[in-house]
Amino acid sequence: MNKMSANPFLALTALEQELLCIFGTGDLGRSLGQRLLQTGYRVVYGSRRPHSCGLLPQGAQPASLVFICIHREHYDFLETLAPHFKGKVLVDVSNNLKKNLYPEANAEYLQRLIPGAHVVKGFNTLSAWALQNGPSDANRQVYLCGNSAEAKEAVAEVATKLGFTVLDKGSLSSARELEDFPLQLFPEWRLPLRLAFGLTVFFFFYLLIRTVVSAYVEQGKDISFRIMASLANKVFPIVSLIMLSLCYLPGVIAAFLQLYRGTKYKRFPDWLDRWMLCRKQLGLLALGFASLHVLYTLIIPIRYYVRYRLAAATISEIRLNHTIPFDTTMAWRTDSYYAMGILGFGLYLLLGITSLPSVSNALSWREFSFIQSKLGYLTLFICTFHTYLYGWDKFLWVSGYTWYTPPGYMLSLVLPSAVMLLKLLLVLPCVDRSLTRIRQGWERSDPEDDSKNSLLT
Amino acid sequence: MNKMSANPFLALTALEQELLCIFGTGDLGRSLGQRLLQTGYRVVYGSRRPHSCGLLPQGAQPASLVFICIHREHYDFLETLAPHFKGKVLVDVSNNLKKNLYPEANAEYLQRLIPGAHVVKGFNTLSAWALQNGPSDANRQVYLCGNSAEAKEAVAEVATKLGFTVLDKGSLSSARELEDFPLQLFPEWRLPLRLAFGLTVFFFFYLLIRTVVSAYVEQGKDISFRIMASLANKVFPIVSLIMLSLCYLPGVIAAFLQLYRGTKYKRFPDWLDRWMLCRKQLGLLALGFASLHVLYTLIIPIRYYVRYRLAAATISEIRLNHTIPFDTTMAWRTDSYYAMGILGFGLYLLLGITSLPSVSNALSWREFSFIQSKLGYLTLFICTFHTYLYGWDKFLWVSGYTWYTPPGYMLSLVLPSAVMLLKLLLVLPCVDRSLTRIRQGWERSDPEDDSKNSLLT
Amino acid sequence: MNKMSANPFLALTALEQELLCIFGTGDLGRSLGQRLLQTGYRVVYGSRRPHSCGLLPQGAQPASLVFICIHREHYDFLETLAPHFKGKVLVDVSNNLKKNLYPEANAEYLQRLIPGAHVVKGFNTLSAWALQNGPSDANRQVYLCGNSAEAKEAVAEVATKLGFTVLDKGSLSSARELEDFPLQLFPEWRLPLRLAFGLTVFFFFYLLIRTVVSAYVEQGKDISFRIMASLANKVFPIVSLIMLSLCYLPGVIAAFLQLYRGTKYKRFPDWLDRWMLCRKQLGLLALGFASLHVLYTLIIPIRYYVRYRLAAATISEIRLNHTIPFDTTMAWRTDSYYAMGILGFGLYLLLGITSLPSVSNALSWREFSFIQSKLGYLTLFICTFHTYLYGWDKFLWVSGYTWYTPPGYMLSLVLPSAVMLLKLLLVLPCVDRSLTRIRQGWERSDPEDDSKNSLLT
Repeated sequence: MNKMSANPFLALTALEQELLCIFGTGDLGRSLGQRLLQTGYRVVYGSRRPHSCGLLPQGAQPASLVFICIHREHYDFLETLAPHFKGKVLVDVSNNLKKNLYPEANAEYLQRLIPGAHVVKGFNTLSAWALQNGPSDANRQVYLCGNSAEAKEAVAEVATKLGFTVLDKGSLSSARELEDFPLQLFPEWRLPLRLAFGLTVFFFFYLLIRTVVSAYVEQGKDISFRIMASLANKVFPIVSLIMLSLCYLPGVIAAFLQLYRGTKYKRFPDWLDRWMLCRKQLGLLALGFASLHVLYTLIIPIRYYVRYRLAAATISEIRLNHTIPFDTTMAWRTDSYYAMGILGFGLYLLLGITSLPSVSNALSWREFSFIQSKLGYLTLFICTFHTYLYGWDKFLWVSGYTWYTPPGYMLSLVLPSAVMLLKLLLVLPCVDRSLTRIRQGWERSDPEDDSKNSLLT
Repeated sequence: MNKMSANPFLALTALEQELLCIFGTGDLGRSLGQRLLQTGYRVVYGSRRPHSCGLLPQGAQPASLVFICIHREHYDFLETLAPHFKGKVLVDVSNNLKKNLYPEANAEYLQRLIPGAHVVKGFNTLSAWALQNGPSDANRQVYLCGNSAEAKEAVAEVATKLGFTVLDKGSLSSARELEDFPLQLFPEWRLPLRLAFGLTVFFFFYLLIRTVVSAYVEQGKDISFRIMASLANKVFPIVSLIMLSLCYLPGVIAAFLQLYRGTKYKRFPDWLDRWMLCRKQLGLLALGFASLHVLYTLIIPIRYYVRYRLAAATISEIRLNHTIPFDTTMAWRTDSYYAMGILGFGLYLLLGITSLPSVSNALSWREFSFIQSKLGYLTLFICTFHTYLYGWDKFLWVSGYTWYTPPGYMLSLVLPSAVMLLKLLLVLPCVDRSLTRIRQGWERSDPEDDSKNSLLT
Repeated sequence: MNKMSANPFLALTALEQELLCIFGTGDLGRSLGQRLLQTGYRVVYGSRRPHSCGLLPQGAQPASLVFICIHREHYDFLETLAPHFKGKVLVDVSNNLKKNLYPEANAEYLQRLIPGAHVVKGFNTLSAWALQNGPSDANRQVYLCGNSAEAKEAVAEVATKLGFTVLDKGSLSSARELEDFPLQLFPEWRLPLRLAFGLTVFFFFYLLIRTVVSAYVEQGKDISFRIMASLANKVFPIVSLIMLSLCYLPGVIAAFLQLYRGTKYKRFPDWLDRWMLCRKQLGLLALGFASLHVLYTLIIPIRYYVRYRLAAATISEIRLNHTIPFDTTMAWRTDSYYAMGILGFGLYLLLGITSLPSVSNALSWREFSFIQSKLGYLTLFICTFHTYLYGWDKFLWVSGYTWYTPPGYMLSLVLPSAVMLLKLLLVLPCVDRSLTRIRQGWERSDPEDDSKNSLLT
């Protein structure tokens, strides 16, 4: 499996190398050990049962760096070894099965058990796979935290030799954050996903009642088959447009708040902060719904129902022997409607692609904000225009307001229209000038401390 | 071309800098030299013809680090310089034109020629472009191997100053691996590509015989034009579904193997290991075939043949003067079929996007496995359901079994149905519990060595 | 907001840490300070008004590293502090609002003001966000330049501790380049975008005159509604095909130039160099246009105009009571045409995906060139073939040449056909052999200096 560790050359060079100790022979301990051997370290395994695989007690010369790759439940036995660990660097690699299982982080608990050692939390965010095979694209970063700068430096050196890049997360109080990281499941996606789910359910039932239920109640017709395609293709674009506008609404609110407060140095309310932090996720979900809308639209002509209706229209035209004239306005309107949809979706996709980590990485700050802001508002505008073209003059038709409720697409237009109106106010030259000054650090009516607007960056 | 190397400031600071020597004035040698100069090193070029460009023989103070940027065929002349190279670090940057051209790696050959030097293999995986312009996204990593840890450290320092990240690959015996890397052409894609090709060819001829050949033989009708679109749109989804299920089959087999063996510490058979390692490629190819299926489906209504047939149906309906009633079951079934297809493809795309290196990089381990496992099985389920809806009750029709062969879609359902059945067995509470224990390190009936289940990670 | 800087443990360990000074309390200064504190440095803020927040003048022990986070306009006040800065490392973090605002780079100006200090330019390409929160995927690299190697080393150490990777860009004369970086807005996209815009406008008006204007002038018919969809769906594929061939033309020209010159060591003319450098962008724009073409093609059957025309054809077929026979050649031709389009688009997409930074990163040099060259030419061939199939025998029809102008698709075929013919010449065995020798470093008729072909890499 690992031909390198058996290499005679390696054994020779390893003799001159530093000795490391690993406690624990689980997956992580074994993988880490193999990798360390491969890089030229000498490795001994520690164990609570010296007779089984414990090289530590026999070894006269103990390692200064000890990796603790065992479960927290077995830490108590390490306490008995506390004298041996005095002044040593203990790297806590452990993870828990759930969040908040224990009152303190594993690494803090370990530090409390062995106060004489320098505990460093780290490597726990890597998979055993990455530890054994070296950093891949997905596992390049090692996070460290600990109270001793020297101890962290020593661990950082090992990590760097293994090919990882190291990021110091500060003191041991960050250990919980590091231990929670491998357990997290899309925390920043939760709010957007819930919102998308809520909107989808609401509009599904709203449209179900307006179309299927009302047709059944008023005309006794069963058009329930429309749920799978027609209804879905109404719900998805509506949710997509609303979520896209929810992407840009917090930015507009924040701008007005800054204008009102006259400074950018006051923190935004918590809800606004949280909202701003999930804009990317809101946008990507909106793109997902838009993609479903595109696919649902493109299968329209192969649907049985559509083919049946088209054939029926042709047949009735022939049987009644009257010729329907070509309506140029209709042709203009529907073609413009489709063209706007295609352009909007194209821009949507562009926004999605540039939010891929490796693409946004290659962009300068100015380029990124150009795409996400200028192109983003253009996308919102085109998609809203697409929906207005779909509606055309239908809002005047009384027959559209089944049971006194407006059609779904009208509801979906409220938010984007509002966002664009507010944005229009913000780009008025006088407003824009004030906002730019505030964002460059200027503060209104704060004369005794004007260092901020003179030494700004 | 390179204004920096002519910069007077640089020349001044370079005086205090380390001297490096480069042998070879090919692309790689020149690019490396430029880049080293730019970073502030002093560089001399060595040559076998001192009068042409050889600065080395005249220079009184030789460099301790020598980059060998010449072809292996010219190494013999370096042997004559062996006394000069004693104790020096030689960085072998060479590559070969083919794999297995020589019995030993270039770097090992060099080490044998000049035993007194410390040979380090490295930099050979970079393009001359990356060497000249510094690391870009595609060329950030430098791999090193060599028998002397000090020599590697010295080379690693230079690489780090040039802006690269260094990954130590162990002793010089890894040199062949490093020399083979730039020559590799999608090694991990070969098996999946061959499989995809084989399946495509098989199903193409299977369906060709069932449709085109049988129609010609039995009814004398030439429907060969269906090859380009109708037939392709049958082959692609079939291959896609089979390859998707082949993605998940090895995981299921591995789980049953672990259950049977009662441990996770025994290695899987080689064929299973190799299969598991190409799951990502299998899945991406399956996604490619699914995308072709989507495009082929969406062009259905603009095909001449389809338009002709639809018009002919309408015309015959009028001429025969009978009205075909609307079939609500048919509408439900076909719309559900399309909806499942769209959702399945959407999830498929999501799986593909998260397998992009930069996206999977941003995910925690738990998030990645959630998407690739939970969402993966959901995708498989929806796509299989989509195919069942397509089939509906056709398997009961005798007329479908042309020449006693089942339709292609039925064959494609065998594997995914089996995979899902087996997976269903695995998630039964009692089986799941055993499997989880095994995967946490527990081993069945191994009482004399129970350290593994107590000190697991 | 930042709980770590208030942590008692941190404060204790920070005491043993290096002291750094930051001038400027703008966004960048504050963010940098927070991050440095978090990593364990001691930080003091300098100010030109000692009474406001200036810790520097009171502090007896000055920092050896000073970050200058103020605007260039306020640099003159730093001159007064020149004696204090003697021998210190000044890190110039500043950016300008526009390019070429000043005759010299900010960092060079600072060095001129304070000749006794060692000025290092750096950190300016990061956003305040990245400085505060540590490196993310999009902000991992710190660029440094400066005249003193020791000063750069000291700054590089701080950057590494903050978790960034450092890239040395040479002497202080590179400062302007670094200061221009955050201001750039897609410089490498400009030429391709202008080209795409020019081609789009030209073909739009060309086709507008040929179809809409000519129909109005000659038959008095208003078919202007065709602008939104039919016309767009002619312009987009034409521009896409031309831009794809423009991707491959410079490579072919370069090869012929190398053959003609008999060496690869002469620089290409500037226009060719610039053209070669924007091939990726040309290709991605071509892919964008191709995607629009695909979407416009797929909405054909749901367009009002198309439905109307199809129904009218059916109705007229019935009213005239004649049956149009099925045309097998037509079925073959159109299906092949669609199949080629789908395959070509699939390959197009594959090229696009592999040009994503994180994907091309994972490829070896040979794999990348296989995809971009071999698969690229295959894509060009299939897309050209797709267009030829679209044309079929129409070029023989006199009626197609409205107002003596050829149809747009014919114009679009000129360039790709030429590129493929030239490429065909280049892969002839005799030509290919010469070219390969030249690319391996061989030079024609240069006998007095043949070291290049013997020591090539």
